[in-house]
Amino acid sequence: MTTVKTSEENVIMMGGGKASPDVFPGAELTAAATYIFQEKIAEALQYGPRPGYDPLRQRLVDEWNRQDGLDLKAEDTRIVTGAKQGLDMVVRALCSPGGCVIVCEPTYGTGMEIFRANGAQLIGVPNDEYGVDPDGIERALRAVSPRPKFIFCMNDLNNPTGSICSEERREKLVGIAERYGVPIVQDMTYRWLQFEGRPARPLQQFDRRGNVITVGTFSKILGPGIRVGWVHARKDLLDRMAPFKSDGGTSPINQMLVYELFKNDGSLELFLEVRRRTYRRKRDVMLEALAEEFKGTGAQWNKPKGGYYVWLYLPGVDTDGLVDGTHALKGTGEAGGPQVIVIPGSHFYAGEPQRGFIRLAYSFEAEQRIRIGIRAVASALLPALRRASL
Amino acid sequence: MTTVKTSEENVIMMGGGKASPDVFPGAELTAAATYIFQEKIAEALQYGPRPGYDPLRQRLVDEWNRQDGLDLKAEDTRIVTGAKQGLDMVVRALCSPGGCVIVCEPTYGTGMEIFRANGAQLIGVPNDEYGVDPDGIERALRAVSPRPKFIFCMNDLNNPTGSICSEERREKLVGIAERYGVPIVQDMTYRWLQFEGRPARPLQQFDRRGNVITVGTFSKILGPGIRVGWVHARKDLLDRMAPFKSDGGTSPINQMLVYELFKNDGSLELFLEVRRRTYRRKRDVMLEALAEEFKGTGAQWNKPKGGYYVWLYLPGVDTDGLVDGTHALKGTGEAGGPQVIVIPGSHFYAGEPQRGFIRLAYSFEAEQRIRIGIRAVASALLPALRRASL
Repeated sequence: MTTVKTSEENVIMMGGGKASPDVFPGAELTAAATYIFQEKIAEALQYGPRPGYDPLRQRLVDEWNRQDGLDLKAEDTRIVTGAKQGLDMVVRALCSPGGCVIVCEPTYGTGMEIFRANGAQLIGVPNDEYGVDPDGIERALRAVSPRPKFIFCMNDLNNPTGSICSEERREKLVGIAERYGVPIVQDMTYRWLQFEGRPARPLQQFDRRGNVITVGTFSKILGPGIRVGWVHARKDLLDRMAPFKSDGGTSPINQMLVYELFKNDGSLELFLEVRRRTYRRKRDVMLEALAEEFKGTGAQWNKPKGGYYVWLYLPGVDTDGLVDGTHALKGTGEAGGPQVIVIPGSHFYAGEPQRGFIRLAYSFEAEQRIRIGIRAVASALLPALRRASL
Repeated sequence: MTTVKTSEENVIMMGGGKASPDVFPGAELTAAATYIFQEKIAEALQYGPRPGYDPLRQRLVDEWNRQDGLDLKAEDTRIVTGAKQGLDMVVRALCSPGGCVIVCEPTYGTGMEIFRANGAQLIGVPNDEYGVDPDGIERALRAVSPRPKFIFCMNDLNNPTGSICSEERREKLVGIAERYGVPIVQDMTYRWLQFEGRPARPLQQFDRRGNVITVGTFSKILGPGIRVGWVHARKDLLDRMAPFKSDGGTSPINQMLVYELFKNDGSLELFLEVRRRTYRRKRDVMLEALAEEFKGTGAQWNKPKGGYYVWLYLPGVDTDGLVDGTHALKGTGEAGGPQVIVIPGSHFYAGEPQRGFIRLAYSFEAEQRIRIGIRAVASALLPALRRASL
């Protein structure tokens, strides 16, 4: 098979979790930057405090406390350079030198790469459609010696499956963490992008001992280029992470831009509403296109209540074999058709993956291109699906 | 002794390496941000390429090649979130799990903290006024087993001493690194701020085998808040560092701001000229004030040819005992006088420090406040100096 070289426009990006450029707030950021560079430059261009820009830390906890009836404190929040840096700090603080980490899989692949790069050994405990499996986690905790260093999970709109963990399981999970004295690292990256139903109560509501570390980011709601995220945790855990915030503090410019956008009461909620509408519409377009193209083929997919992704299941198909080294779906990009970038399911497993999955991001592309992309995906995948069902 | 609480205005900052707010380019950054957020937001707010923003990487090597007659390539350059992140990546790549690092001391204290936080053991080899001591480094390489993982040095305006390594020693150092197969990590943070004489030839001019890793930053010339630095190294070394660029790529916003400021031929040189003049004037003010206050007292100090700092020597004085936990100089900040923040010399040594040193930054404060600060420093230090000489 020869691959025709395709222009950028002819590449449909359903791979990485890129934000929708349709809702990038150019005017608001221009105004914020102008204010910051004209009125606050002495602060913006100097070293900021390592824990983060105080008004932003306060704004974040005010928002969490308001939304979820929590009683969190700004001093227990650290601003980090994207959630990735937060995860990097967590694993370096808790897993040095090495150690085991329980990951509720399938889960965020890049997070697992960060854990592995720092010497952690990963133990996968399968999620189901209701989210993490507390009993499975407890079995792993009992079986593994020395005890795992932390449990990693995404309870709100798990990446890639979109599952939302039930409140019963959340409570049980926190109880287990308490009993075994193992912290839970909860990645809340997509929590603010739930567009159906109300978000479930966060783990912190069940947490009396401070065993929950939350990591989050503005990447998915504002844009990954901003590189502003946070870690919230018990003070002694934050102190252990501090030496690994080795970039000298997240840029005050980026923190102040975020703060200026969201400093007024209600501004974040209004901003989120627009993003939820945008991503909901894109999800609907992808689901409609999937229904059209894959109906009756044996393929299955979820209907996520939020987030960026659809998790497509092709029974019996080895999806690793379907992409090339750049994650381009083989069979797309030929004869003038668009090339489609996707991520094969194995990326989201710690060890032996469940076969047959592909993650499709609807977050980035415009609606018409989502339709074209899914048509190309179907043309490429249906032959493999037919072969598998023979 | 009771310390009177002082207002911010009454605290004179001669501690950390803060840039001069007098020359923060507010108008230029406002224009650049406006352009970026209006014309390039799709790129600025999305994930950027992990190695960095290509036009900036190219701009950097063009500048180095022009200034120093080098033949460096953009592909061997990585943009990092400040030099600190560069050093963090270097030590994680080369010192895992643990290992020895030779540091040419006194040297950048925060760099050593980063190395130590990642399990490196530091071996200090003393510099002298001509910079690093190649023979001392070779002795250390011969004596230590297993072989040290890298040599860390600042050949241009060493922090804190301001020493500039001679070209003879640079050549010898590169030869030693080649013979022993140990990389040199050269921190070039202050190279562009040499305001007397021409910078010496960089290590790369002697380096045939790619044993030199350079780390640098825009922090000292533009402002630390920008958090844009670089690493330049041989490809296989960059590949080993890549997994530790765990923030997901430096913010494209910050990289594009830097690029917009310096994209035109000559713009960087013009920008640097203004900064060199500014810091030269501040240095002169501090040197004059020191001469006035400390003449005939036995205190000694250098006359740096660039950079941010004066390295003050008080024979026989234990300078660690002169500051409190926030690096405020004891005896300042009383009776309405200003409190002065300084850094005691021990901070710049890997092991047992040479006693009697204090680093004074002239970079941040306005000229009049430098004078007031040095007067306060003298009032606080002269009694200790007199006691020591009894």
